[in-house]
Amino acid sequence: MAGDVRVGDLDETALLARVVPLLPTEALLGPGDDAALVAAPDGRVVATTDVLVEFRDFRRDWSTGADVGWKAVAQNVADVAAMGGRCTGLLIGLALPTDLEVAWVEDFARGTAAACARFGAVVVGGDLSAAGEVVVSVTALGDLQGRAPVLRSGARPGDVVAVAGTLGRSAAGLDLLLRGAPGPGADETLVEALVSAHRRPQPPVQAGPAAARAGASALMDVSDGLVRDAGRIAAASAVTVELTTSGVLGEWVRELGAEHVLTGGEDHALLGCFPPEAVLPAPFAVVGAVAPAGPHGVLVDGRPWTGTTGWDHFLR
Amino acid sequence: MAGDVRVGDLDETALLARVVPLLPTEALLGPGDDAALVAAPDGRVVATTDVLVEFRDFRRDWSTGADVGWKAVAQNVADVAAMGGRCTGLLIGLALPTDLEVAWVEDFARGTAAACARFGAVVVGGDLSAAGEVVVSVTALGDLQGRAPVLRSGARPGDVVAVAGTLGRSAAGLDLLLRGAPGPGADETLVEALVSAHRRPQPPVQAGPAAARAGASALMDVSDGLVRDAGRIAAASAVTVELTTSGVLGEWVRELGAEHVLTGGEDHALLGCFPPEAVLPAPFAVVGAVAPAGPHGVLVDGRPWTGTTGWDHFLR
Repeated sequence: MAGDVRVGDLDETALLARVVPLLPTEALLGPGDDAALVAAPDGRVVATTDVLVEFRDFRRDWSTGADVGWKAVAQNVADVAAMGGRCTGLLIGLALPTDLEVAWVEDFARGTAAACARFGAVVVGGDLSAAGEVVVSVTALGDLQGRAPVLRSGARPGDVVAVAGTLGRSAAGLDLLLRGAPGPGADETLVEALVSAHRRPQPPVQAGPAAARAGASALMDVSDGLVRDAGRIAAASAVTVELTTSGVLGEWVRELGAEHVLTGGEDHALLGCFPPEAVLPAPFAVVGAVAPAGPHGVLVDGRPWTGTTGWDHFLR
Repeated sequence: MAGDVRVGDLDETALLARVVPLLPTEALLGPGDDAALVAAPDGRVVATTDVLVEFRDFRRDWSTGADVGWKAVAQNVADVAAMGGRCTGLLIGLALPTDLEVAWVEDFARGTAAACARFGAVVVGGDLSAAGEVVVSVTALGDLQGRAPVLRSGARPGDVVAVAGTLGRSAAGLDLLLRGAPGPGADETLVEALVSAHRRPQPPVQAGPAAARAGASALMDVSDGLVRDAGRIAAASAVTVELTTSGVLGEWVRELGAEHVLTGGEDHALLGCFPPEAVLPAPFAVVGAVAPAGPHGVLVDGRPWTGTTGWDHFLR
């Protein structure tokens, strides 16, 4: 049976022959030579890389291969969007245990392809290696369409702070998976939506270029939690980011809890700062304002946040 | 003592603060934001990625952190050179065991920096994660300076086949490491040179653009062994690659053995095919000729090769 074939039963060429046809690979030159060739229309290329490791970034009993493929694409296209760019190509490195089912790898490729279709990306290259645990490395390339990149360092006092996408849903979904089962009386539709947000994040990639066109002064991908990532804009821009829970942030906090919304990463929302005169592009919603630098980089309703501060790979 | 600090003793920010200053990071926009920005002067970008896994691609008792950093850079800049390009930027993903000494990571960064200096590259971005074993993923970006990429598929009957760089020295060096000690009467200078070839390969990166300028019809990086990689040119170009040991190839075979020279990868030599009228650029040396397609993709002195066929990640 196909499901019983393991990675170690095939050579690299045979494994590639199973996986590559499942992927969208349009490029000036796609997989198959020593390197790919990708268009960089404005003479510059945005480039970002992420490594996802089994047991740390995903668990194979909680996420299918397709979920992992989706997530790997989603978090990298989000980083390109966070510069104000659109993704022009992905390179995917896979290190695989030899006893891993080939069906898992094919499923990974299908999830990658589904995310590529959703986010407008293609796979231009990659590499396969053996390892003791599944390690996925993705590099995303992007195009700024002639615009300046939107950095973390451009926020100015008086700017509006806004979020596109969701916050806390992935963390709430992970929490449900960690607890094993939702409590009695849980809203099943909500449970399913939260778990799905964890398995298949939906970064609002169109909002990145839209923010750049609208004149965003600073932009970043919320991958480590709102407070922590807002702190990075605050530090890079030498300002204070004042978050307020009177608006949409408060709605989310009431639905999901402050901890999830303020410290949960991996929804891959975009956090932007806009000059007061800018017209906020959809789907950005106001969550605060930028103030001059003070003793705290981030304030929540005027006070420093005293809960946990989000995800770190090494401190757990 | 600094040498006793482990990866798990630091958070990601603190670890980056130790490592990033050791690296050359010049770019339009280097590490520190959601993504880097790299010049792509001719409106296209070459892109390639490789994954190196501890115990498979390197051993920490045989290679220092600096050796591993060097090798990761070398094999990726070789892939860019194999398209006829020069490297414009590297992205490095590191997955690290939490009990790994931070000194190893700093050493890795120094080796990366040394290779960047040698090969004319810079590090523009990266990512850190935790894992059970060290996994290094490198993506190299490159520029073709307006030329067409040199593919594996362009070889034509009548072309000259030539190699720039060395073959078999890395494999011979690995063999010495595997055997634990050189035999009695071994040439110590040669032993040192071979082990060094394994630990710090020296791909002739200038030869890639030089081959392209000289009109090379096909070009690739020899990473899996000459016979295996020549077979890839043969398959992609629908030709036979006829290798001959009457010239430099024979000298190498006499010094290192046929198995090492014909199937050893990881020296990262460049294998090129040139039209008969082309002037071979230094340091390319003739190793054969291209003939029409036949029953075997590669012939060695007129016969099919019957030894092992080189490296595969999954079949060992």
